[in-house]
Amino acid sequence: MSDNKTVRFGILGCATIARKLARAISLAPNTTLSAIGSRSITKAETFAAANNLPATVRIYGSYDQVLEDADVDVVYIPLPASMHVRWVVAAAEKKKHVLVEKPAAVDVAELDRIVEACEVNGVQFMDGSMWLHHPRTGCMQELLSLSHSHSKSVGPIHFIHSSSTMPTTPEFLENNIRVKPDLDSLGALGDLGWYCIGAALWAKGYQLPTTVTALPDVTRNAAGIILSITASMQWDQPSQTIATIHCSFLSYTSMDLAVCGSNGSLHLKDFIIPYQETSASFDFTLGAKFVDLHIGWNVRPEEVHVANNLPQEALMVQELARLVSSIRDGGNRPATKWPEITRKTQLVVDAVKKSLELGCKPVAL
Amino acid sequence: MSDNKTVRFGILGCATIARKLARAISLAPNTTLSAIGSRSITKAETFAAANNLPATVRIYGSYDQVLEDADVDVVYIPLPASMHVRWVVAAAEKKKHVLVEKPAAVDVAELDRIVEACEVNGVQFMDGSMWLHHPRTGCMQELLSLSHSHSKSVGPIHFIHSSSTMPTTPEFLENNIRVKPDLDSLGALGDLGWYCIGAALWAKGYQLPTTVTALPDVTRNAAGIILSITASMQWDQPSQTIATIHCSFLSYTSMDLAVCGSNGSLHLKDFIIPYQETSASFDFTLGAKFVDLHIGWNVRPEEVHVANNLPQEALMVQELARLVSSIRDGGNRPATKWPEITRKTQLVVDAVKKSLELGCKPVAL
Repeated sequence: MSDNKTVRFGILGCATIARKLARAISLAPNTTLSAIGSRSITKAETFAAANNLPATVRIYGSYDQVLEDADVDVVYIPLPASMHVRWVVAAAEKKKHVLVEKPAAVDVAELDRIVEACEVNGVQFMDGSMWLHHPRTGCMQELLSLSHSHSKSVGPIHFIHSSSTMPTTPEFLENNIRVKPDLDSLGALGDLGWYCIGAALWAKGYQLPTTVTALPDVTRNAAGIILSITASMQWDQPSQTIATIHCSFLSYTSMDLAVCGSNGSLHLKDFIIPYQETSASFDFTLGAKFVDLHIGWNVRPEEVHVANNLPQEALMVQELARLVSSIRDGGNRPATKWPEITRKTQLVVDAVKKSLELGCKPVAL
Repeated sequence: MSDNKTVRFGILGCATIARKLARAISLAPNTTLSAIGSRSITKAETFAAANNLPATVRIYGSYDQVLEDADVDVVYIPLPASMHVRWVVAAAEKKKHVLVEKPAAVDVAELDRIVEACEVNGVQFMDGSMWLHHPRTGCMQELLSLSHSHSKSVGPIHFIHSSSTMPTTPEFLENNIRVKPDLDSLGALGDLGWYCIGAALWAKGYQLPTTVTALPDVTRNAAGIILSITASMQWDQPSQTIATIHCSFLSYTSMDLAVCGSNGSLHLKDFIIPYQETSASFDFTLGAKFVDLHIGWNVRPEEVHVANNLPQEALMVQELARLVSSIRDGGNRPATKWPEITRKTQLVVDAVKKSLELGCKPVAL
């Protein structure tokens, strides 16, 4: 179903994650999948059939044809990072709004070309950090909000730990696009590390750290691509905050986030992909102290359950569609919030890489 | 009540934590508090009265008198770290078994003098890491055990994160023994960091790391004592494991431990002091994967509750008393397990300090 209010999506490429997004577009209100393009029309047709895409979806044998389609408002670009600058700029020049998979670019220089093209062409930019759109994230943000009275807030943040690891096969570690120098040269840092760095920045209200330091434990594949890395982020103002991040393609499925402030802490173990699709939870304590003799605590963690009416990726699509509508139909300017978040994340990704190149010296931002 | 089987404790000093141990000694079976000594007899008397110590407890105005007391088998030494070498060696020479608060010594050189004195004199040495004696710790160890079939074990460990932070007052940060160069020169690293490092070593079955690296975010008080520090431990054999640790006197009450292996993970947020005294819990997953489309997980964390018949500090006292009995009454040799654990912890503490002195360069062990 498509009417004047519908926001029409096109997808460039048939990446695995495109299946998740195609479903999200079908779930979100007032959005529709209008077109999908692949370099091979057979691949696009196979994708459409395998995912039961409606017959109304136009299937193209090139990315350009999706961008030429006047009935596409937004393109989702799950291509390898090295192709983002070319295809996002091309999309923006065709006045298509863009949703780009992470890492948004191979470095901030390319990202700046991307963001500038979006600005010049008046189109919305957003990266695919789905977890930011889950209502759980908003709930946690409330707890972190310093506008609350001190007793109801975690308080100024002192420490953040965020990790994202997943197991892969030997075949993945040599051949997956995420570990190919000419495709996703940032490896695990750009893929899983994007979330860890993003979570630390989110917890700090998107204040950039003062310095970023890689740890010496990096693991690379034969082509030199990062498979596993640990790093820290340090903020010096207004008071010191430390974040440790760890990401790896060589471990087990995990995605932990812990945030510790002056008056509280929050913890979750599924921050990127919630355990289940219809609700998610996190734990927090506020005002925790040890009881007399230090034989226990005065509080236990409270578990907060947050229901979501749509999966987080559909909420992301819905938010993007809302912005696109307000530009297309309301004459508004694109929201700067999303490219700003992306750029800060990319700056820190770049700084971790630079620290590594400098022998794990701190890199100032 | 004291009979031939009773193990008789003396305490040197009236530190706050001595209250907790006095209670633990009264709770543990077959142990009794026989004597307490302070440099001021008035202080010792006040402590005895405030804590309702039985009239049978002998109260001394010096530490030496406790060591001279023939009816004391074990002494608990919660004195500042700089005094450990003097008083543990003195106790060992009087054939007293020893329970020493952490940090066990100011450095491994002093610890070696301590451990040697205990060996030469045939007395048991143990440090006050209470959490190692909680049955929860044993339960978690089962999950980490590689002797299990792979599907029931966390598998070879890839990543460990451990943090211990607590809020303090400005007065504490200048005057507490734990931040005085002549008393506890290791500051937060020797105090809270002892647990974080100990937990990482525990998870790795007490294999020493290959290298230890401090991060540049250290905070010190005016006297140069560490108030907050972050570090990493790296094992290269048989495969890579990374641990990040963080400890701080400048934050909120937290004590997190996360262990991630090839096939599972476990998490707890109260590893040093359980939320409540009679049971404790931890979470784990085994074999976690994302479901199709990555819209959720195939498992959710299981929460394991472990009841304990005695508080963990009483279980520590009970274990020490068991060893003391077996030496005193059974003619056995002291167990080497406990001083070995202590020495490895101290080695890593020293390496973190050395890395810091070297400008955060990795220190090989």
